[in-house]
Amino acid sequence: MPAPAPATAFAMPDAAELGREALDRLDRLAAISEQADGLTRRFGTPEHARALDLIEGWMQQAGMATRRDAAANLIGRYEAEEPGARAVLMGSHQDTVRDAGRFDGMLGIVLPILAVEALHRAGRRLPVAVEVIAFCDEEGVRFRTTLLGSKAVTGALGPAELGARDPDGRTVAEVLRDFGGDPDALAAAARRPDEIAAYIETHIEQGPVLEAAGLPVGIVTAIVGGNRLQVTFEGEAGHAGTVPMGRRRDALAAAAEAVLETEALATAAGDGAVATVGRIEAEPGAINVIPGLARFTVDLRLPDDDARRAAAADLERRIEAIAARRGCRVTIERLYESDGASCAPWLMDALGVAIAGEGVEVRRLPSGAGHDAMAMAAISDIAMLFVRCKAGISHNPSESASVEDMGVAGRVLLRLLDDFAMPEPDA
Amino acid sequence: MPAPAPATAFAMPDAAELGREALDRLDRLAAISEQADGLTRRFGTPEHARALDLIEGWMQQAGMATRRDAAANLIGRYEAEEPGARAVLMGSHQDTVRDAGRFDGMLGIVLPILAVEALHRAGRRLPVAVEVIAFCDEEGVRFRTTLLGSKAVTGALGPAELGARDPDGRTVAEVLRDFGGDPDALAAAARRPDEIAAYIETHIEQGPVLEAAGLPVGIVTAIVGGNRLQVTFEGEAGHAGTVPMGRRRDALAAAAEAVLETEALATAAGDGAVATVGRIEAEPGAINVIPGLARFTVDLRLPDDDARRAAAADLERRIEAIAARRGCRVTIERLYESDGASCAPWLMDALGVAIAGEGVEVRRLPSGAGHDAMAMAAISDIAMLFVRCKAGISHNPSESASVEDMGVAGRVLLRLLDDFAMPEPDA
Repeated sequence: MPAPAPATAFAMPDAAELGREALDRLDRLAAISEQADGLTRRFGTPEHARALDLIEGWMQQAGMATRRDAAANLIGRYEAEEPGARAVLMGSHQDTVRDAGRFDGMLGIVLPILAVEALHRAGRRLPVAVEVIAFCDEEGVRFRTTLLGSKAVTGALGPAELGARDPDGRTVAEVLRDFGGDPDALAAAARRPDEIAAYIETHIEQGPVLEAAGLPVGIVTAIVGGNRLQVTFEGEAGHAGTVPMGRRRDALAAAAEAVLETEALATAAGDGAVATVGRIEAEPGAINVIPGLARFTVDLRLPDDDARRAAAADLERRIEAIAARRGCRVTIERLYESDGASCAPWLMDALGVAIAGEGVEVRRLPSGAGHDAMAMAAISDIAMLFVRCKAGISHNPSESASVEDMGVAGRVLLRLLDDFAMPEPDA
Repeated sequence: MPAPAPATAFAMPDAAELGREALDRLDRLAAISEQADGLTRRFGTPEHARALDLIEGWMQQAGMATRRDAAANLIGRYEAEEPGARAVLMGSHQDTVRDAGRFDGMLGIVLPILAVEALHRAGRRLPVAVEVIAFCDEEGVRFRTTLLGSKAVTGALGPAELGARDPDGRTVAEVLRDFGGDPDALAAAARRPDEIAAYIETHIEQGPVLEAAGLPVGIVTAIVGGNRLQVTFEGEAGHAGTVPMGRRRDALAAAAEAVLETEALATAAGDGAVATVGRIEAEPGAINVIPGLARFTVDLRLPDDDARRAAAADLERRIEAIAARRGCRVTIERLYESDGASCAPWLMDALGVAIAGEGVEVRRLPSGAGHDAMAMAAISDIAMLFVRCKAGISHNPSESASVEDMGVAGRVLLRLLDDFAMPEPDA
C-alpha cells in the first residue's frame, strides 16, 4: 500500500475521471484540423481560430478571464486571493506538425485548465494567480520559425520572425494581422518578470524513459542545448584489391571510427547526453573502390551548456585525432548551436512533492526536444512535467498517453498549485 | 656496389634501351584507339584488328611464327632447340577499359616480345619454346564478360560467353565471326597442358606496394579470390534528442562497428588480405533522427582461398554478434564469390633468381586485381611479374611505369628464359 497522500485543502478530483475528461478535450481539439484525415493545425489558419474558441470556452468554464495578446496567444487568468498578484503561468502550444498526434502541445493546455477548473469548483483561491496560455505557434511548420508564441510573451519576437514567409509568400506579420493580432503592438504582449511566479509546462515525454521506468510522470531537469556538425573526411580512393590495408587512407573507415567515438563520448558523458549520426555517405561509392571521401552529420545534446560545449570541443579534437592518425584531412562545419534552459531547483522540488503526493516515485530526466519553456526561461523560472507516452512515439498519429497517466499528471498540477509557495528571497 | 650479376649465355640488352623501346611500342599501341582523345580499345573492333597487325609485325621481327586462334587471340611462337618442345607462354590482353592507360595489359605483350627479340638477335634457342599471346579481351568492357581470350585458350569459353551481347545487341559469337575468328572451332583454340611449360604474365602492379618499397619489380604470390557482401542492419529509428544512449538500437552505429571490424579482420589476417566497405547509407537519413536502417557493402580478398573462406565466415559471425549485442536485426547477402589462383613456387623461385640477377631485392606480393593468369591457372603453372607503377594509379590516362623499371622487367624476363628449366618430376 502506498503511503497516504498529503491532505489538500479541498476534495481532489478522481484521476481516472480527470484523464477521461482530458482525452475527450484532446479529441475535440484534434478534430479541428486542416487535413480531412489526420491532424494538422498551423499558425494563423481558420483551424487555429476555431481551436482558440474551443479552448477559450473551457477557460471561461474554469472561472478564468480570457484575452488574446497581440501575437494571437490565448491567455486565461484565474485570479489570486489578492487581485494582481504574481501568476503561475502554465501552457503549451496549440499548433501541430503535419499529420500530428493529439497530445504534443495540447496536453499542456488542457490539463492546466482542468486543474484550474477543479480549484474553481472548490471555490479555492491561491496566493498566486494561475494563467493558462495557448501559444499560437511552437512547431514552426508554416514559417519554419519555431517558438513564435512564447517568444512574443518574452518580448523576443522581432523583425526576423515577422518577415518570415510561408510557402504562399505571406509574412508572419500579414498573417498575424489578418488573424486579429497586431504585429505593431507586440511590446504589449511581452510580460514583465515581476508579473510571473513561474512557468510550468506539461508535455508528453516524446521519449522512452518514463515508460521504461514504469512511471506515469517525471520532472524535467533541463531542456537541452545542442550542437550540429557536418564532418567530411578526405582520404585517398583506390582499388579495393590492390591497396594493402597498411597503406590505405580510407575516409569511410575514419568516419566509422568517428561515429563510434561520437556514440562513446555521449555514453560516457552521461547526465542526459545524447549524440546521433543521422546521415552518412561515402564517395565514389563503388563496391570495389576504397572511399576517398566520407561525410556525416552529428547532433549532440547535453542538458548542461558548459558540459555540452566541452563535449563538442572534445568531439572535434577526437575527430581531428582520428583524421591525423589515419592520414586523412578533415573538415568540421558547425551547422548550428543553441544553449539549453535549466529548470529551477525550487520548482523541481515542488513538483517532486506533488508527484510523491500521488504515491509516485519521483524521477528527473532531461528533455532532449525543444519546448516553449525554452523561450520562457528568459523571463521566468521554469519547470516541466513530463507525461509518459507510448513507445516514445511523437510527431505521429500513433502518439499516445494513457487516461490514467494524464489523470495523475492533472492531479500533480493541482497539488502543485494548491501548495504553491514562492521561494523565500535570498533563500 | 651490388654483387655482379650472374653471367648469361649472351650479351644482355641495356635496361634503359629496352625500357625506351617498350615505351615507344606502348605509345604506338595506345595510338590505336576508338576515341579521338585518349585510349579505348574493345574486343572485335577495327582498332583491335589494327593493334594485332602491329603486334604481329613485332613478333615476326623477333623471329616468331605467328597465328591467330579461333578466339582472335594472336600467338607468336619462338621455337625451341628441339621443335615441338613445351612452350613457356607469356602474354596479357590487348583490350583496354574506357579512357585507359597505356600499360595495363599491353606491357605484358610488349616486354616478352622484346625479350624474345633479344634471344633471336643473339641467335639463342632454348630447351623450351617461347610463345607470346595477345589475348583478345580481358577487361570485358564490350560484353561485360571478362577473360574471353584466356578462357578460350583454356577451353573454358562456352555458350554463356558466346551469347553475351554488347550494347548494340550483337553477340560475342557474331562479333568474333566478323572479326575472322570461328566460334564453332573454339575447341581448336584450347591448349593441352602437356604443350605448356608455364604461363608467365607481366603486368603493372596497379597498387602502391612496390613504389613504397622502392623496388622496380616484384613477384606475385597469388591472384586473390574474393567475397562480396551486402549487409543491412535494422534497428529502431527515433528522435535524436529524446532517446537516451542506453536505450538506442542505432543501425548506423552497428554498421560503423562492422566497418571497423571488417578493417580489423583484414589487417589482422595479414598475408595480403584486404577488405573494403565502399558503399554505405543510413535511413531515414535526417540529421536529428536515429537511423533505423543502415546498409553497406563488403569486398573481401585473400590470396589463400581457405583462409578467405574462413575470414568471410568469421566476418559474418562478427557482424551477427554486433547485431545481437546492439539489439539489431541483420541481413547478410552474399553477392559474389570467386576462388583465387596461386602462383607456382618453382616459377616464383625462378623469377626470384632472375630478379636477384638484376641486383634487385626480391619482393613477393599478392595481386588483388584479376588477370588472364587467373584463367590460365586451369591448364598451367602460372607466375606473374609485377612492375612498379606510379602512385598505384591504373584504369586511368595517368597510369605510368618508368622506362627504367620496364627495362629491368624486360631483363628479368630474359634472364628467366635464358635460365629456364622445368622442375624435376616428383621434385
